[in-house]
Amino acid sequence: MKVVVSIGGSVLVPEPSGARVAEHADVIEELVADGCRVGAVVGGGGVAREYISAARDLGANEIELDQLGIDVTRLNARLLIAALGEDAVTAPATTYDEAGEALRRSDISVMGGVAPAQTTDAVGAALAEYVDADLLVYATSVPGVYSDDPNETDDATKYDRLAANDLVDVIAGLEMNAGASAPVDLLAAKIIERSGMRTIVLDGTDPDRIARAVRYGDHDGTDVIP
Amino acid sequence: MKVVVSIGGSVLVPEPSGARVAEHADVIEELVADGCRVGAVVGGGGVAREYISAARDLGANEIELDQLGIDVTRLNARLLIAALGEDAVTAPATTYDEAGEALRRSDISVMGGVAPAQTTDAVGAALAEYVDADLLVYATSVPGVYSDDPNETDDATKYDRLAANDLVDVIAGLEMNAGASAPVDLLAAKIIERSGMRTIVLDGTDPDRIARAVRYGDHDGTDVIP
Amino acid sequence: MKVVVSIGGSVLVPEPSGARVAEHADVIEELVADGCRVGAVVGGGGVAREYISAARDLGANEIELDQLGIDVTRLNARLLIAALGEDAVTAPATTYDEAGEALRRSDISVMGGVAPAQTTDAVGAALAEYVDADLLVYATSVPGVYSDDPNETDDATKYDRLAANDLVDVIAGLEMNAGASAPVDLLAAKIIERSGMRTIVLDGTDPDRIARAVRYGDHDGTDVIP
Amino acid sequence: MKVVVSIGGSVLVPEPSGARVAEHADVIEELVADGCRVGAVVGGGGVAREYISAARDLGANEIELDQLGIDVTRLNARLLIAALGEDAVTAPATTYDEAGEALRRSDISVMGGVAPAQTTDAVGAALAEYVDADLLVYATSVPGVYSDDPNETDDATKYDRLAANDLVDVIAGLEMNAGASAPVDLLAAKIIERSGMRTIVLDGTDPDRIARAVRYGDHDGTDVIP
Amino acid sequence: MKVVVSIGGSVLVPEPSGARVAEHADVIEELVADGCRVGAVVGGGGVAREYISAARDLGANEIELDQLGIDVTRLNARLLIAALGEDAVTAPATTYDEAGEALRRSDISVMGGVAPAQTTDAVGAALAEYVDADLLVYATSVPGVYSDDPNETDDATKYDRLAANDLVDVIAGLEMNAGASAPVDLLAAKIIERSGMRTIVLDGTDPDRIARAVRYGDHDGTDVIP
Amino acid sequence: MKVVVSIGGSVLVPEPSGARVAEHADVIEELVADGCRVGAVVGGGGVAREYISAARDLGANEIELDQLGIDVTRLNARLLIAALGEDAVTAPATTYDEAGEALRRSDISVMGGVAPAQTTDAVGAALAEYVDADLLVYATSVPGVYSDDPNETDDATKYDRLAANDLVDVIAGLEMNAGASAPVDLLAAKIIERSGMRTIVLDGTDPDRIARAVRYGDHDGTDVIP
Repeated sequence: MKVVVSIGGSVLVPEPSGARVAEHADVIEELVADGCRVGAVVGGGGVAREYISAARDLGANEIELDQLGIDVTRLNARLLIAALGEDAVTAPATTYDEAGEALRRSDISVMGGVAPAQTTDAVGAALAEYVDADLLVYATSVPGVYSDDPNETDDATKYDRLAANDLVDVIAGLEMNAGASAPVDLLAAKIIERSGMRTIVLDGTDPDRIARAVRYGDHDGTDVIP
Repeated sequence: MKVVVSIGGSVLVPEPSGARVAEHADVIEELVADGCRVGAVVGGGGVAREYISAARDLGANEIELDQLGIDVTRLNARLLIAALGEDAVTAPATTYDEAGEALRRSDISVMGGVAPAQTTDAVGAALAEYVDADLLVYATSVPGVYSDDPNETDDATKYDRLAANDLVDVIAGLEMNAGASAPVDLLAAKIIERSGMRTIVLDGTDPDRIARAVRYGDHDGTDVIP
Repeated sequence: MKVVVSIGGSVLVPEPSGARVAEHADVIEELVADGCRVGAVVGGGGVAREYISAARDLGANEIELDQLGIDVTRLNARLLIAALGEDAVTAPATTYDEAGEALRRSDISVMGGVAPAQTTDAVGAALAEYVDADLLVYATSVPGVYSDDPNETDDATKYDRLAANDLVDVIAGLEMNAGASAPVDLLAAKIIERSGMRTIVLDGTDPDRIARAVRYGDHDGTDVIP
Repeated sequence: MKVVVSIGGSVLVPEPSGARVAEHADVIEELVADGCRVGAVVGGGGVAREYISAARDLGANEIELDQLGIDVTRLNARLLIAALGEDAVTAPATTYDEAGEALRRSDISVMGGVAPAQTTDAVGAALAEYVDADLLVYATSVPGVYSDDPNETDDATKYDRLAANDLVDVIAGLEMNAGASAPVDLLAAKIIERSGMRTIVLDGTDPDRIARAVRYGDHDGTDVIP
Repeated sequence: MKVVVSIGGSVLVPEPSGARVAEHADVIEELVADGCRVGAVVGGGGVAREYISAARDLGANEIELDQLGIDVTRLNARLLIAALGEDAVTAPATTYDEAGEALRRSDISVMGGVAPAQTTDAVGAALAEYVDADLLVYATSVPGVYSDDPNETDDATKYDRLAANDLVDVIAGLEMNAGASAPVDLLAAKIIERSGMRTIVLDGTDPDRIARAVRYGDHDGTDVIP
Repeated sequence: MKVVVSIGGSVLVPEPSGARVAEHADVIEELVADGCRVGAVVGGGGVAREYISAARDLGANEIELDQLGIDVTRLNARLLIAALGEDAVTAPATTYDEAGEALRRSDISVMGGVAPAQTTDAVGAALAEYVDADLLVYATSVPGVYSDDPNETDDATKYDRLAANDLVDVIAGLEMNAGASAPVDLLAAKIIERSGMRTIVLDGTDPDRIARAVRYGDHDGTDVIP
């Protein structure tokens, strides 16, 4: 079974500390021990936000800010690699070819961002599509896909199951609403739709949830059905 | 004045032939002679479509197809570079840093695609944002932004002027409509909106239109107003 | 057994289409299933010729044209990689070190051109020499090595067997004759001679001929004897 | 006049914020306006320490930690580049060749770390030596070179002037003393000694001190005399 | 068991000739046959000294000289790779990540220098630390660590055993003494000390000594005890 | 005027020493002072031969030997760069694009070899063709093109003038004769023929001859006439 796990920056590295990273590494190693081939994509989180805010004050434009953000995701990728030890390749992959080559050889590959104007959400979906993954898991800071931003709207309801084309509509709706934030971005949703991959969006603050979801399909998040 | 010109693949290279490329190169050189700094981004066109179709038949996934498409855009970029002679850097830029560095030194930079899951429309907008361009011109195969796909709908009307946030809405609407094609994609529209760049979408089959639009603001396409 | 297969561009991709590529991929996979280690080198073919002709019209010099040609060979290499699936490394090798490293690990490596002023015929021979291949097969659009260009001269006779030093003389003779075309170029012939590799030149339009030649030494082309 | 300014991470980015970076960029631009060619080398600071501490907890070894540290220095370099605008090359240099090439063309080059087991102090000295700089300035968090660590020892005395070979001895002595920290490391001191470069070590928390030191030789730090 | 062998340039390539290289390759292959994973780091030797001397006469500075020296170490690495055949990766590693990746896959990795202002002694120690080697062996042109330079001082005594922190002191002492040369440099000694790796310094002119030292701990050099 | 100077390795670096290199650098700088744009290509010479001989003894094949040879040419290129100071780019170009980019910016570019199975003779011709050079000068260890190898045959006569297509014939004849050596190789001759470049082959042991030939067309070698 081939799995791509996309771990949000604020889930993996709420602040630069090893604790949460070690737990995520343990889960990935368990999956590998179960026979899975695993690709991980990690986000930028708080440090990315700090650098981006500083650079914005200095007059940097959005593409430069994305470049900084990508650099931070690769720092976070190096943390996860450190925790994975010899199961993972020694350096973050910077292209899909490189990550795909590692998975082809049954190594764990860890990526951060790839190019400006593209989130790590989208990188996760693209890597999953590239390696023909059986499952894509988003470990985010919210417990799934909601009809609306649960932090903004009281009656936001979580979807337990959602067809991929409905995911695109829900995310498109959220992105139109300036105040709301979505658990995955629109490009990611579109890649999920076109690729027909099974996808799970769940709360990754407890990494064991990822293991349970992959192994037993058991989770409290949202199943996106091809 | 800093200008980014995004030239559609089927506009620049309807089939692999030098004629159209030479005309586009002439226009770019005129703009440089006028004192402009110019970055060009070129698309894939028919050859890209042929390779992508062949690879899809062979079982390639969308990310692999994008990779092929990027390679063809760089072939097209090399054609344009050949026509530009010593005014342009000798090889296509593959990152925004590299393209930006060339423009910083007042050289003409030519790019194709940058990363999978990102069109050259979006690369054009991102490069324009990265170099803080004064103007972004899309030389496409349709004469501007329409309310609907003019090839599909008789009463599609062309916008002469359009606010950037309205552009996002129009493109989002077109993308929802599976049959319709849009002159620029949604990511490009969003970058245009956030960056507040002046943008012109025009019919690039006659390259002189680009020169007139840049010099005098005179064109029959669509003005996107920040 | 280590085999390098050099597949002419017009043999592999007469036009950008997957059909012929799939057949070649099948043959390579059969050889791998038989226990062979296989390196493939692919040429540029018709698309290369079209781009080169366009760039020549734009004033490009021969080295720039070669650069374009190399880019097209790598496109073709990506097509073959797509057809080979997980047996092949994910991206075309661009140096002999990289291709050799893949073969060392028993992966299939696919290359296009390496540097200007060097055909993929020569790359095939050089890769074969680099990896100490047991056999080098040229899958070309002519059925073997002839005393003269069979398209130009009626009494051109095909050699069933040819010593490597005689191959050099025959090719040198053909190259002196401006109108004639040779199945492999002079540099390739010289590498074959110096390396003492067994080499077969055959008509590759039916890829099964490659399999039969590798497995049983059975073919209608020309055997070049060290 | 060619100047290399080595700015400590905690001096440039006490926390990820643009304020201090902008002041340092202003000083560099003033020096350029005066006709100087400037290369800047920046350190890692607090964010580097946080990541390194997290990775150490995860079992990373010192070389992996250095790798992380280098990545953070390049983030900081991107901040400084953002603040410098079009005077600086668009991306951090990662080799001396690349940085030297930028200075040769009278561009501002910004570097972070180069390789594990080598501090940015040493990179600053090496870059200065490589470009045959007239002056090397260390903008550190201490006001100069002391006979002992001023934070540890009350009677530590600051040197106003120090011969380069004495600098080596002082730093070697400090490094032997486990508790003490030195304003530049031993490798940097040795490079300064062998190259015979004029060097100033000063408190960089107020960036104007750098400008005054370069322009008038006026500062409260330590002059290292070849 | 993971072993890093650092072979001095004048030990491996006293002059450019294959004889000594073949013997060292045999020893490495024996160790691999015994089940060891081996990383090798090779120095520059006589050819490096000749080039460096020539470049110094031409006005090159020390960093440029180091760059030349690194290039020669990679030439020597290619010689060793040629002798190792298919057991080693096909090209010298130029970063610790790359070398570590090869060892992770149980391939032999061969490195030369990494960056200016860092000897291959230090690269050997850094690679050993990076891959968490069980043993680091320096095959040098002197028979171990001495209290003083044995070529300069008659009563220099060899240490059979030395604590790592004492190694740092001894080397620091030797480096202070301008005329003396040390078997490993100070940075290497410090990395050995901090990493707590078992290290052996021995006379590598007879490569079999390396094999005996690794297999049986039997040697006439110096044991550095963590 | 654009000039490419191809300097044989045994002409530039008969042994690794700076004397001859300095003289060649002086000539190049004089030409630049005269207003020429200059690209230099340097060969391997004696050190290349020593390394190649050592590697051949170790069982390396010809492609691996070429790789070693290329590395030595880049060492020699670094020597020439050191002697040229700030007029030349800081590092050897490794592709035609890179070298061409330097010449486009009126910098001196220095190259060694580019790819295996291609001599620096051919690189010189290819670079000259790529940059549309007005003149290509081969500074070799023989005084021009002879009807036969002058070291082998007493009645070998030197050509003062030779049409480019006759050059191809002469060189082809020499290459057929196993014992003879030619001042440029066949591929170089063919590139010279097809490109229609004026070319001079002369004895480069006295570098002033290059300056006189470029400035006044005055030399004792062979003029190759397009």
